[in-house]
Amino acid sequence: MKIIDGKKISEEIKAELKAEVKNCFIKPGLSVIQIGNREDSNKYVSAKQKAALEVGINFNLYHYDETADEREIVNKIKELNNDEYVDGIMIQLPLPDKFNEKKLINLILPSKDVDGLTDRNIGRLVTNKDPLTSCTPLGIIELLKRSEVKIEGKNVVIVGRSNLVGKPLMHLFLNENATVTVCHTKTSDLKKMTLQADILVAAMGNPKFITKDYVKEGAVVIDVGINTINSGLCGDVDFDNVSKKASLITPVPGGVGPMTVTMLLKNTLKSYNLKNSK
Amino acid sequence: MKIIDGKKISEEIKAELKAEVKNCFIKPGLSVIQIGNREDSNKYVSAKQKAALEVGINFNLYHYDETADEREIVNKIKELNNDEYVDGIMIQLPLPDKFNEKKLINLILPSKDVDGLTDRNIGRLVTNKDPLTSCTPLGIIELLKRSEVKIEGKNVVIVGRSNLVGKPLMHLFLNENATVTVCHTKTSDLKKMTLQADILVAAMGNPKFITKDYVKEGAVVIDVGINTINSGLCGDVDFDNVSKKASLITPVPGGVGPMTVTMLLKNTLKSYNLKNSK
Repeated sequence: MKIIDGKKISEEIKAELKAEVKNCFIKPGLSVIQIGNREDSNKYVSAKQKAALEVGINFNLYHYDETADEREIVNKIKELNNDEYVDGIMIQLPLPDKFNEKKLINLILPSKDVDGLTDRNIGRLVTNKDPLTSCTPLGIIELLKRSEVKIEGKNVVIVGRSNLVGKPLMHLFLNENATVTVCHTKTSDLKKMTLQADILVAAMGNPKFITKDYVKEGAVVIDVGINTINSGLCGDVDFDNVSKKASLITPVPGGVGPMTVTMLLKNTLKSYNLKNSK
Repeated sequence: MKIIDGKKISEEIKAELKAEVKNCFIKPGLSVIQIGNREDSNKYVSAKQKAALEVGINFNLYHYDETADEREIVNKIKELNNDEYVDGIMIQLPLPDKFNEKKLINLILPSKDVDGLTDRNIGRLVTNKDPLTSCTPLGIIELLKRSEVKIEGKNVVIVGRSNLVGKPLMHLFLNENATVTVCHTKTSDLKKMTLQADILVAAMGNPKFITKDYVKEGAVVIDVGINTINSGLCGDVDFDNVSKKASLITPVPGGVGPMTVTMLLKNTLKSYNLKNSK
């Protein structure tokens, strides 16, 4: 068994991005909109800011109080859409209930939608047009490629069908010519399906749910879960137990997590390059 | 074994649509843009016209010569987008090579895109927002529901990952809580996958490819193929042979085919109702 070191791979990618940004005539810019004061959101936003500055991307945070008027946010998005120094715009999710998440996201110009969450970019992903794509799924494919895992022709089983991970990931795997199965809470015989996976992705948000009984000998196991339990953070995979059976496995923390932020920077640079190649 | 009679089910739906259209204050309108003179396209367009008139939907065909200027088509689409008597707009595919299919399709207002092919509507399908959806996949789900096939929790295997059928269909099945596997030319052991299907969809365009060796005893088999061979039309399923094993099966012709046109009318009425409920 070998551990896929997401932290190390993400450092490598950031070094590549940094070298590329150095050659940019104008610095690429990333703007983040945050509403409210969730502790986890604060932490994620800081991590993004730190990483952006590390590679030389301009970072702007627009932080609003929960009491903010939705029109104020709408105007800010429009302003950022028109700002030529802004290459990437993202809204830190989840938003407080009173805001219409989907509506606000879809106001972002698809060419600046570095989180890949606008309907148009999701549609373009389905038809394999290489749009800006959701960062966690993108990070998973990158982890596999940099670990020299062959994807074409492999049986991939994804457990979880969220809009943020499971569904976009399924299309990325299909575009890489994998045979893809998506399982979820309504799947009748989950074990039967996961035991056939050459590459198994656990993305359902259920601490240590995937035990070794769910995993084929020699499978590659990707753990997307981030759960807080008494003893700290853990994933959706029972690492100690599954790692004895898997050929490759991502830990939590230090697996998929660090890749998400790095892919956000990569998307920002992609948006910048597309703009400047026009 | 029971045959799913797509012709009969589609007549039932048309009767329902006709009754609904009768109560419309203004008649719903469907506009079709055709470029060139492909024999198959002529046939499909006539079938759409006939069906539209049958249920009382206004039908307009804008037929252009292959030598037409793309700007002319662009202007027509814009005109139809703004025409309040037009509820549905579709472009008959495939277009002659010199036209940019994807670009033209994406000019159609999503609320009038009755073929469900704009990036925005595909994106909304992925996130389960019940948009106007591609007619063939929609027809397949309707066939199953009207044949009282339970979908939730079933293993669905789709062979073929086209943008028109396989990919949108996968999301419709996921939204119905099926466990979905998508197979294609790069799948390593196709037989192993299809033999696990409770519901098997053949949509790869390969005449009679799916023989009984690919089908589990008692499976429901949906044949989307329309292939022309010496002896006439046939599907992707070897009907004579597979029908002995399947519990339910669609024939070709007379299975999925008739549903596609009917769903186009249903989408036109859906678009009309959405407009008038605003």
